[in-house]
Amino acid sequence: MSHTITSLETIVSLCKRKGFVFQGSEIYGGIGGMFDYGPLGSLLKRNIEESFIDRFVHSKENMFLIDAAILMNSNVWKATGHVDNFHDPLCEDVITKKRYRADTLLEDNNINPEGMSCEKMTQTIQEKNILSPEGNKLGDVRQFNMMLKTEVGASSDSSSLSYLRPETAQGIFVNFKNIIDAMHPKLPFGVAQIGKAFRNEIVPRNFLFRLREIYQMEIEYAFDPKSQNADVLFEDLLSQQKEWLVSVGLKSELIHRRDILPQDRAHYSSKSVDFEFQFPFGIKELTGCAYRTDFDLSKHSESSGNSLAFVDSGTGEKIMPHIIEPTFGLDRLFFAILVSVYKEELLENNEIRTVLAFPKHIAPYLACVSPLVKNKPEIVEKAREVFVTLKKKFGNVLWDDNGNVGKRYRRQDEIGTPYCVVVDYESLENNTITIRDRDTMEQKRVTIQELLEIIA
Amino acid sequence: MSHTITSLETIVSLCKRKGFVFQGSEIYGGIGGMFDYGPLGSLLKRNIEESFIDRFVHSKENMFLIDAAILMNSNVWKATGHVDNFHDPLCEDVITKKRYRADTLLEDNNINPEGMSCEKMTQTIQEKNILSPEGNKLGDVRQFNMMLKTEVGASSDSSSLSYLRPETAQGIFVNFKNIIDAMHPKLPFGVAQIGKAFRNEIVPRNFLFRLREIYQMEIEYAFDPKSQNADVLFEDLLSQQKEWLVSVGLKSELIHRRDILPQDRAHYSSKSVDFEFQFPFGIKELTGCAYRTDFDLSKHSESSGNSLAFVDSGTGEKIMPHIIEPTFGLDRLFFAILVSVYKEELLENNEIRTVLAFPKHIAPYLACVSPLVKNKPEIVEKAREVFVTLKKKFGNVLWDDNGNVGKRYRRQDEIGTPYCVVVDYESLENNTITIRDRDTMEQKRVTIQELLEIIA
Repeated sequence: MSHTITSLETIVSLCKRKGFVFQGSEIYGGIGGMFDYGPLGSLLKRNIEESFIDRFVHSKENMFLIDAAILMNSNVWKATGHVDNFHDPLCEDVITKKRYRADTLLEDNNINPEGMSCEKMTQTIQEKNILSPEGNKLGDVRQFNMMLKTEVGASSDSSSLSYLRPETAQGIFVNFKNIIDAMHPKLPFGVAQIGKAFRNEIVPRNFLFRLREIYQMEIEYAFDPKSQNADVLFEDLLSQQKEWLVSVGLKSELIHRRDILPQDRAHYSSKSVDFEFQFPFGIKELTGCAYRTDFDLSKHSESSGNSLAFVDSGTGEKIMPHIIEPTFGLDRLFFAILVSVYKEELLENNEIRTVLAFPKHIAPYLACVSPLVKNKPEIVEKAREVFVTLKKKFGNVLWDDNGNVGKRYRRQDEIGTPYCVVVDYESLENNTITIRDRDTMEQKRVTIQELLEIIA
Repeated sequence: MSHTITSLETIVSLCKRKGFVFQGSEIYGGIGGMFDYGPLGSLLKRNIEESFIDRFVHSKENMFLIDAAILMNSNVWKATGHVDNFHDPLCEDVITKKRYRADTLLEDNNINPEGMSCEKMTQTIQEKNILSPEGNKLGDVRQFNMMLKTEVGASSDSSSLSYLRPETAQGIFVNFKNIIDAMHPKLPFGVAQIGKAFRNEIVPRNFLFRLREIYQMEIEYAFDPKSQNADVLFEDLLSQQKEWLVSVGLKSELIHRRDILPQDRAHYSSKSVDFEFQFPFGIKELTGCAYRTDFDLSKHSESSGNSLAFVDSGTGEKIMPHIIEPTFGLDRLFFAILVSVYKEELLENNEIRTVLAFPKHIAPYLACVSPLVKNKPEIVEKAREVFVTLKKKFGNVLWDDNGNVGKRYRRQDEIGTPYCVVVDYESLENNTITIRDRDTMEQKRVTIQELLEIIA
């Protein structure tokens, strides 16, 4: 009885109940577009990050990781065009003055807004007599800049405006020369980064899907377009992206490729392909891959007066590398993983078990150790020994001695713990324990040594 | 010829040259108080984080990790007193209008500002005729709020003011009930968090020491003051803090305990002890440990109308837990580690070798593999095999075939790589390689199997 698409409510409720995700500032009525990762969520999220670093940095020889500041010199965002172009179409309820995203209102009315200008959207809203969610007329559609601003510094006389970065990518581009000077890479090479970015979404919604504060995982892959075919490289990076998505638990059949139309691409991109995912509320963007050409490096070279060209150490030739950027929204991915791994299964006794079938390396906890009974000190002591051994070796291991074994299994299934280990009467005799597999529900009796090998 | 205190210039220059730390937005002339972690720095930083999580979360049974949003409902900061009390004393050059921290100006003039009010500082500046760094008179000292502000949301009519959190702690407190409901802990238990915080420092300075955008690692440890002695627990947490600092590479003799005077404690603290570190520019705060009592949980219960009391599942008793907070500035710690591990050693041939003697689990790269010579394909091929094996197993492993072996050793010493592995003619005969230890500079010939064991 495996559900194909789990409902939004099911995921949100599980996330709160089990400590994956809480609404930001919840006790104060929340704050739009912010969520907090709870104890299980922060372990899951960190495991996803580790997997990303393993796959795209440590398993490569030409990949570097950086971690740049969120606040940057505001000239960065002038150079990239974000000050002028990083907009969403906004329209206002003429009575309540509440603001909405025009493209989303159109979509909600089954009109595809792809490629529409503000004028075209205004016209469509009028022609189709689309009203605000409160039932009132809507004003003209205009562009709204999505960068969050702040003032940095105590001086009132100096230019102190700064932006909370709307993408992590620019932290990589402005450090391009520093990275080359320190690491002496050859082309092609890539730089990856995991970090926060901020977008002042007009209407954040759909749980972790449209947030104002997001985690991005971005790769800027630099190559010489004269010696490498951009299209071939682009497809190669895309397939790595997809392969990794599946490796962290996404169901392949829920992932869809979408080639972005020229008029819908970001202003810096000459080719964009998204992977979309079948979220509970529809098929929506999950990851992007953009061919940024030399847009960013050239713009920054021009604006800053510092050349970001790559100098070939052999020939001395100056090359302005082109960039392909595979990018992942970590929060969306976290959400998509939960949707993918969530299962409800009808058991023989007619009970339903809820399982999060995480890949082992992603699961918040790897194993849970229990004594069969609580009132037999030798069994408890032996179980503690096993627990301490596992915890020392693997870290993310739980102890649970509440309720009966069946209930403990259900609890661990629901948070996706791959292995449950039970110490029983026989353990005292022959130093074996039972290990129970989350997915098959099979129990095996093994030695402690075998246990360590199975879990590793 | 080991230097006791490395100079600031040496560390800053090494950091840039080798890719540990770059000035934020450097090509645009920078932005005050922001630095970026480069390829080596981001690996080092992540290793420090992992060590923190291992030591304070995974090795415990009653510790949880969370990861809360940077932007919170602004009522959070009213409740905690940050809107009213999170200040630094500021005074202005009456001619240039440039602003300075009054306490720092006093310290620079060998006057201890501890416990001084604004009035007292103003009076002292006048009496001692202290001038601005530009040589002009200074105005009255007043308080300057250090929180960075931003406006969130598109609506102009709703309350949209938000702050970039000045400490990660409150993300833990406002989620206190959510964490209890999800995880069912018993008292005492703790919650840890690693994340960005922002402080609009009047004068950021001293490299990573005083930044405007910082990484904090904080633990909020909750206990019942009726059943546990706060002073004993406080000293226990302090000693864990110090022990861990030493484990990540700090020289114990450079760490000094400092009990903070009542008038210098943060407004929420009834007891504070810092560990200070002998930085190149003096002995300065590195970590803090504060007894926050029930200040935060009570304030939030009151202000939000949601009780954050802990309910004992056995007796039903409601307890407002007290909190002890060990807190680490990750950037400062990163800096202090570099100061501690930096060594210059005079070799027999009168050359000086620079070494970063990181503990093995903290080093950016664990090993570097080289072929003895580049022009012998069998050796190169064999070396590649060893490299691929190590990289698959450990991830952070380098390949280096540039220059001679001596130069490669120097390069790896300078970035703190514990092991250099060289494949040579003998390797082809008997499948052994040489492994060279960074600290002892001893080379040993071992089998591949032994190599894996030594590195692990």
